[in-house]
Amino acid sequence: MEMMKRSCEQFLAELAGKAPTPGGGGTAALVGAAGVALGSMVGSLTIGKKKYAAAEADIQALNARSDILRKELEALVQADAEAFAPLAAAYGLPKDTPEQAAHKAAVLESALDAACAVPLQIMEKCAEGIVLVEEYAAKGSVLAVSDAGCAAALCKAALQAASLNVFINTKLMTDRAHAAELDAKADKLLGEFVPKADAVFASVTEKLRMR
Amino acid sequence: MEMMKRSCEQFLAELAGKAPTPGGGGTAALVGAAGVALGSMVGSLTIGKKKYAAAEADIQALNARSDILRKELEALVQADAEAFAPLAAAYGLPKDTPEQAAHKAAVLESALDAACAVPLQIMEKCAEGIVLVEEYAAKGSVLAVSDAGCAAALCKAALQAASLNVFINTKLMTDRAHAAELDAKADKLLGEFVPKADAVFASVTEKLRMR
Repeated sequence: MEMMKRSCEQFLAELAGKAPTPGGGGTAALVGAAGVALGSMVGSLTIGKKKYAAAEADIQALNARSDILRKELEALVQADAEAFAPLAAAYGLPKDTPEQAAHKAAVLESALDAACAVPLQIMEKCAEGIVLVEEYAAKGSVLAVSDAGCAAALCKAALQAASLNVFINTKLMTDRAHAAELDAKADKLLGEFVPKADAVFASVTEKLRMR
Repeated sequence: MEMMKRSCEQFLAELAGKAPTPGGGGTAALVGAAGVALGSMVGSLTIGKKKYAAAEADIQALNARSDILRKELEALVQADAEAFAPLAAAYGLPKDTPEQAAHKAAVLESALDAACAVPLQIMEKCAEGIVLVEEYAAKGSVLAVSDAGCAAALCKAALQAASLNVFINTKLMTDRAHAAELDAKADKLLGEFVPKADAVFASVTEKLRMR
């Protein structure tokens, strides 16, 4: 059964067990999707409200982007689970002869590269989520502002969690130049979007605590 | 249907819509449960491994606590959804006469108090999750260290997200002394456990990036 078709309860029970999937990467995508969905909720609670009529078109456009982004992150939950099998197969290859060892090293290197691709995509989508959430927090109904703050915290955590799934794979790569390139991509996303998410969260906290 | 029995896909679709539940509080509980489940996964991948035989008993004990904690957070997903109805009902009360207004104010004050109770419990459970994750990161298999780091990021985000659902309710309370008391509880949990989660996440990142 596809990951997203599982009940929440079943997903978490499988996550807790020793099966390699779902794992940290897929969970990051799921949490990112939850953050994006909370953004949509802010939009859904804003649309049609007289007080926010001036922002209506913007919010409609945000919700359209947000729905697509949520579906993309949901697809990445599945993609992360599917990306694990080739890596596990590579680890299982024999290395009894020099030929086998060389073959295993080559297959493993390529599997590690593929295993980085999904968490990097998850990171990019979470970064996009943070951009949307920033706009929801600024333009959405104040009645839902806490949900915008929650969304920022969740998209940020998902971005950070996904980054660990890049670093655990690049760490093992033989081609250090390529590994450094992938690490740099992850670092750039962290460097730009963690502070952005923190700023949204801080501004929401401030609004909520001001009287 | 109970929240946790919904498919992941359905939960997120409902979250994105304008229905008030599931909302930010329930999602915080779900993400906290996911963080705790990732801790269990680290444990599950450590149990039975010769290299970690010395930690086996500790990890078994951690997994037993972690399973209970996950179920408690799952129950709070449901509890958060159920706590919303009385608050919505209180907001809907008429206040056309002074008597009605006084009655509404009293009912609302009590509903706000009840609406703080669930996110405060979610915060306490996420804090407990961070304590477990700290131990998983220290004693669990290094092969699963990235999952321990993900768990820390998710439990922290859930703790922070839940805090906003305390603050949005205390903000509206008339009894400011009681509101300050609840805010102080939330602040204490944030002050103690956000840095703890950050430390776990930083130590995992360091391990992954060291060569």
